[in-house]
Parts: sequence; C-alpha cells; structure tokens
Amino acid sequence: MRLKDSRTGIELMDRALCLRLLAADTVGRLAVVSGGAPVILPVNYALDGEAIVIRTAPGTKLDSAGQMACFEIDAFDRATRHGWSVVVSGVLEEAGVHASRELMTMHSLDVTPWAEGDRDHWLRLVPSRITGRRVGA
Amino acid sequence: MRLKDSRTGIELMDRALCLRLLAADTVGRLAVVSGGAPVILPVNYALDGEAIVIRTAPGTKLDSAGQMACFEIDAFDRATRHGWSVVVSGVLEEAGVHASRELMTMHSLDVTPWAEGDRDHWLRLVPSRITGRRVGA
Repeated sequence: MRLKDSRTGIELMDRALCLRLLAADTVGRLAVVSGGAPVILPVNYALDGEAIVIRTAPGTKLDSAGQMACFEIDAFDRATRHGWSVVVSGVLEEAGVHASRELMTMHSLDVTPWAEGDRDHWLRLVPSRITGRRVGA
Repeated sequence: MRLKDSRTGIELMDRALCLRLLAADTVGRLAVVSGGAPVILPVNYALDGEAIVIRTAPGTKLDSAGQMACFEIDAFDRATRHGWSVVVSGVLEEAGVHASRELMTMHSLDVTPWAEGDRDHWLRLVPSRITGRRVGA
C-alpha cells in the first residue's frame, strides 16, 4: 500500500518494505540525547526480527541505554533528486552478554563493526515506531 | 593534520576537511529532540560559511528552532568497509524571511528541497562543534 502526501509529494512506505530495507543494509545512524542535546552516531548493525542490534564499547551509545533513541538508514540519488529513508524509534536496551551470545548463535547475526577495538556491549533498539518515506519518486 | 585513535583505528578529520565535505554535498540528516526523544530527519541543505542552511515548512524542524540540533553527512563503502562522517552540533535558529532572501542573494545559495510544497521558513544551524571521523581507512 502506498500513501502519498499531496502537498509534499512524499510517499510513505509500509512497514514490510521498511523491514526489508533494514534487513538489507548493515550501516546506519543512531541518534541519542546526551546532555539534553541530540547526537548522531554512525553505526554498524544487524536486524534481529524487528530490533536493531548494535555492538559498542563504553561511551555515549552505552550511556543511552534505557532511553529513547532513533535509528535511520537512507539512500539518496543526488543526480536524479530521488531518495528514501527509514526511521526507527524506540527504547535502547542493553542486552546481557549471555543473551547477546545466544542471540548471535540463534539468529546467526553478523554485527562486525568497521572500527577496531573491543566492543563487548550489545544494544538493542526495539521499535515502538517504524516509518519510511520516499521523495522524488 | 590527522589523528588516529589507537584503540579503534578511527581517524579524526580536521575542521577544514569537514567544511570541504559539507560544502560538496546537498543532502544530510538533522537530529532534533522532540518530546524528549531524538528524531532524525533527512534534509536538503546548503553551507553558508560554516552554517547549515535548511528550508522547511511548519513542523518538527521549525518547532525545534532555538534548541540544540545535530546535523550529519557521511559516505559508506560497504564492500571495502570504509566510511567517513561529519557531525555538526549547535543551536538551530530561524532566519527571518528578509534575512533569508538577502542570504540567498548574497551567497547564491541553492537550497532546493527534493520534496514539493511551500517551504518558506529558513533554518540555520550555526556550529558550536564540527567533528569528522574516518573509519577503515
């Protein structure tokens, strides 16, 4: 089902398409609130069911566990001025080490960060909302 | 000048390079805090000096005028697992209509949103901080 905003020409993508796009990619952007201000952080991820799974080291992302977060993937074609984006909102949860290993084994999740170093903490963004928009289509 | 984090292998890009990358692109992502939660919104933009200039209609972005915001651009090569991102943080300010026209004329700014519809409001994100990171390089 496709819905189009007559004012902006922006087309809404349904949840099934959003999930297919999320399953097909491996890198996106996480936004959290830190010190009252929004912060955008590029992240490697895997999709587990409808949850975004991220590996991280101690820092801003891990400090945001238990709080609302937003995750985004997109693709833009600058030449033709077309693009789409999928935005996932929900609470960022820290998964325990055992839970994470189980998760990895059960679902064969591959979340290999491009950055080096230990990233022993696992975060899951369980979506309360998934929205997708396509513009210029 | 290049600085590399020995733990993660992430290389910091200097401000001059960040500004060149910002000047070369036209589409990025704005994060604002709405109802206490972070929200990521893809936006067309132009760089005016060091400020990110965005045209918008009434809505979440305009409601965030006067508050802290975060803007990000990036490029990822999924095959070679390389990527970079530039993140700009600062206060989002609404520019008056006259100021905006003057701005457009003076600097020949072209901020043409891909979406249709009236977008008569201009926002400027004046950076208090610009950071750039390259990973996998």
